[in-house]
This record gives sequence, structure tokens and C-alpha cells, in this order.
Amino acid sequence: MPESAAAGQQGREPFGSRLAAAMAARGPLCVGIDPHPGLLADWGLNDDVAGLERFSLTVVEAVATLAAAVKPQVALYERHGSAGMAVLERTLEAASDAGVLSIADAKRGDIGSTMAAYADAWLRDGSALAADSVTLSPYLGFESLRPALDLAAESGRGVFVLALTSNPEGKSVQHVGGSESVARRIAESAADENRRYSGTMGSVGLVVGATIGTALVDLGLDLDAVRGPILAPGLGAQGATPADLRATFAAAYPAVLATSSRGILAAGPTIAGLRSATEATRDGLLEG
Amino acid sequence: MPESAAAGQQGREPFGSRLAAAMAARGPLCVGIDPHPGLLADWGLNDDVAGLERFSLTVVEAVATLAAAVKPQVALYERHGSAGMAVLERTLEAASDAGVLSIADAKRGDIGSTMAAYADAWLRDGSALAADSVTLSPYLGFESLRPALDLAAESGRGVFVLALTSNPEGKSVQHVGGSESVARRIAESAADENRRYSGTMGSVGLVVGATIGTALVDLGLDLDAVRGPILAPGLGAQGATPADLRATFAAAYPAVLATSSRGILAAGPTIAGLRSATEATRDGLLEG
Repeated sequence: MPESAAAGQQGREPFGSRLAAAMAARGPLCVGIDPHPGLLADWGLNDDVAGLERFSLTVVEAVATLAAAVKPQVALYERHGSAGMAVLERTLEAASDAGVLSIADAKRGDIGSTMAAYADAWLRDGSALAADSVTLSPYLGFESLRPALDLAAESGRGVFVLALTSNPEGKSVQHVGGSESVARRIAESAADENRRYSGTMGSVGLVVGATIGTALVDLGLDLDAVRGPILAPGLGAQGATPADLRATFAAAYPAVLATSSRGILAAGPTIAGLRSATEATRDGLLEG
Repeated sequence: MPESAAAGQQGREPFGSRLAAAMAARGPLCVGIDPHPGLLADWGLNDDVAGLERFSLTVVEAVATLAAAVKPQVALYERHGSAGMAVLERTLEAASDAGVLSIADAKRGDIGSTMAAYADAWLRDGSALAADSVTLSPYLGFESLRPALDLAAESGRGVFVLALTSNPEGKSVQHVGGSESVARRIAESAADENRRYSGTMGSVGLVVGATIGTALVDLGLDLDAVRGPILAPGLGAQGATPADLRATFAAAYPAVLATSSRGILAAGPTIAGLRSATEATRDGLLEG
């Protein structure tokens, strides 16, 4: 880790408070930055590092003043190796410079000092990959994420822990356990963790699919009690309407940060096209 | 993705067959390459990219002819950002050049085209990060890993799916479900998947902690039926002896690839020290 990494936090507000303010000011929309090969081709870009960078910086420029957050999909940078990860670093820096919150969609998870290393990568001031928040995967137990939970609290950053997803095969893990399902335990742990935060929204969020249907009710998950942001992928191209979101999340809807990726990205490569699609999506959420 | 990535497989044998041959020839030892800040300091190296590279290439040079595999811990490279990931690329290349199998300990997991991107990164010929195998995390369901399972089969590479770990907080996910626990479902899915492979060992392995005690019996996991390699971290510094391994894994012991990291790495930085520790650890496994 470079020496600059030890420089310490910049005294920023907790992530949850910053995100709540952004959602209040701009609406509850997160734009996914997903440089899939097909999208790069649609934009007339090559599936290489130069195309990746052009795509990413265009999205940031277009949506930075309109969206509450941007969410680069880390896998699509990692696919290009270390050179792709360098593009991700520049993308995260561009988002920060442009004043929009970032969510590194990395779904990392490990234990002990290894988990601490992932926390260092994504949540420590001075790290080239530092984002405002990162998504985490809890197969090793919610508590295994402790180094990231604590570093996020120290550095004013946040996490989104995978809880309940809409892919059918997710049930074989997340729904197991009946009334004490794996997903419910994760949600309860996040609720406990958010007690360390004052304000309306803590910095420990969950990832819950927008197209889960009645699973929250079926599994008895009380997302309202989590008091953290709910990152909900699946708006638009993946099938959920704003009305679906309100019905699915019910009392927890005010905490939902809806993510749209392809529905907005398909309106590129022009800045005007991306802005127009972002505004329309955001307005749909506000009116939904 | 660079064009070279589409060059196609090199007609290599399936990973499971290659690993079985390496374990038969060299013994069932995997050496973890864990460049923790404390170990770098112990070796007189700085906690920076140069120290990371020196550490990694030294371990590969020392153990490449002695161990069945090496397992770089990806988090400890990612912690140094894209420059650290470039060191990981060189480490994986050095392992390949030196003739030792590599396991990228990345614990990646996602769904759909995002999972396909992770598979591209770690398992596709021509990717700068391509390893002989990669560890995966199944919180989104075993079947969500399909793109990696299929690409591994095509490219003669392998995967190790997290199943049952020894950290106490892992129980809140892995043990849930009683006689149909999450961990048991993962093991059964891996067994199904290995039916596509002939030979004694398939290319779909599991990660099962060496210090899980009686959890296999308690949960009714039949690892022998998996017919894939069992990557078992926890030998040596983390607490398991060779005799513990034989007792814990019982009939599945011939498939166990025991991983030692700190116990061996602490014997550096000299090549002679690392070799001596590796040989002693391996001999302990063979005699245990």
C-alpha cells in the first residue's frame, strides 16, 4: 500500500448521510456503468482498454449532476486485467471530481486479514481504487465482513451487502432456513450494524433485487428496520417498473436506490442521449 | 478484452487431471502466496508494489518444483490497486513458466453476463489474469457460477467453490438449513457438475477449511462423492496438523490439497529457507 494511504480520512460525513442527501436532492437513481462488450460495440467503441475508458468517462460526464450515484461494475474492468483496473481507478476519480457518489460493484468477501485487504483496496483513503462504497458478498458470514464495516465507519464510506437477489438460483442459498432464512439473518445483521449511525440512513446498505416479487413478505424480511440504503438493481431493461419498486419495497421504499444500467446506457453514446434517458428514468421514479 | 483473448484454448488437459498428476508426483501441498504487510516487513521489503513483486516472485522461484500448486491471495494484490494487479499478472505468468499450477484466490461471484466477465478475467486464454483455477463464492447460488463452470471446462482450467469454512461466523450462512444445509447443497452441486469429467478428479473443486472439526459429519457432507479437489486452507500456522486433516476429511482425504501460507512464508526470505519449510510441510503431509 502506498504511503499516501495512511494519510487518514478527510473528515467527510458518513456515507449514509451523504447518500440520503443526494437522493433527496436528485432522486433515488443510481446509474450502472456496465461496459459490456455488446454495449461498447453499440457505441462504436472497441472492446479494449481505450474503449472502456471512453465509455466510462462519457457516462460519468453525462450523469454526474443527475444521478444520486454511479455504480461501475468491477467485473467488466477486471476482464481487461490490470490495465482495465487502472481505467476503473480513473473512472472512480472522475466520479469524485464531478461530485457524484460511487458504488464499486465488486461483491468482495473473505475473512480476517484478507478481508481487511479488500477493505484497504476499496474503502481506505489514499487507495487508488477507493470508492464511496463497495458491494460485498457474505457467504462467509455477515460478521466476516467486519474489517470493511469498521473501515467504512472510520473513513466515511459505505458498504452494500448482498442479501436477496432475483436470479432463480439465488434461492438455493438465500431462502434456505425457513423463518430464519439466510437473507433474513443478513438483513438483521445490517440493522444491528446501522445502530452505530445517527441520522435517517446508516452506511450499511443491502443489495436486494428489484424483481424479487413477494420474497420480502414470504421470508419475513423487514427492510424498513435496516435503516440503510437498499441498492435495487433491475429497473428498466431488467424488468421492474417504478410502480413495481413501490409495491415490492412498501414501507422501505424511501430507502431504495434504484439502479438502471442498460436502459440508460443504450441511449448513448451521446451525452444528450444519456442525459435525456437518465432524466426520464429519474422522473419515472419520482412519479412512480 | 484484448484480441489475443479470443485465441482459444491450447488443448491442455482438464485442470482436475493436471492437478491430480501434480499431487501424485509432488504431494498434496499448495503454498499460499500471501504478501501481508507484516510478512513483507519481516522479509525486509517495503509495503509497496516493488516489495509485492519481489516477495511473489521469490515464493514462486522457491516452491515451483516442490508444491502441487501455488495460491496467490488476490486481495493482497488488489490492495495495491491496478499496479498490484499487474504484479499478480506477472506472478501468475511466472508460475506458469516455472511449471507449477496456480489457484487465483479471488472468491469472485456474480450473475449472468457479469459472472461471464469474471470468468473471462480468470479463466480465458489470453487474459492477463488467467490462472489455472480460481476460487468462487456462491452466495448468489451455485448455478449462478455457470459461466465460469463452462469456460473452465472449455479452457482446461478449474474452479474451487466456497463450501464450508472454519471461521465461526461462517455458520450463519453455510450451516443454515438443517439436513439440507447451504454447504451440503453446494457440495452436491459440485458433485453433479463433476459428472462431465472423466478420470479420477473433476475440475470443480471446493474450498473446505482444514479446521472445521466434525462439521462434515454434523452436516452430512459427502466430500468423497464430489470427485473434485478439496482446497483446505488452515494447515500449520492456522492450526491444523496433517493428522487433523486425515481425521477431518476421512475417505475424501486423497482429494485434499492442503494449503499452507504463513507457516512456510515465515521461513523466507531466502530461497533455501522457503524450500526447506516447503519440503518439511510436504513430508509431514505424506507421513501424517
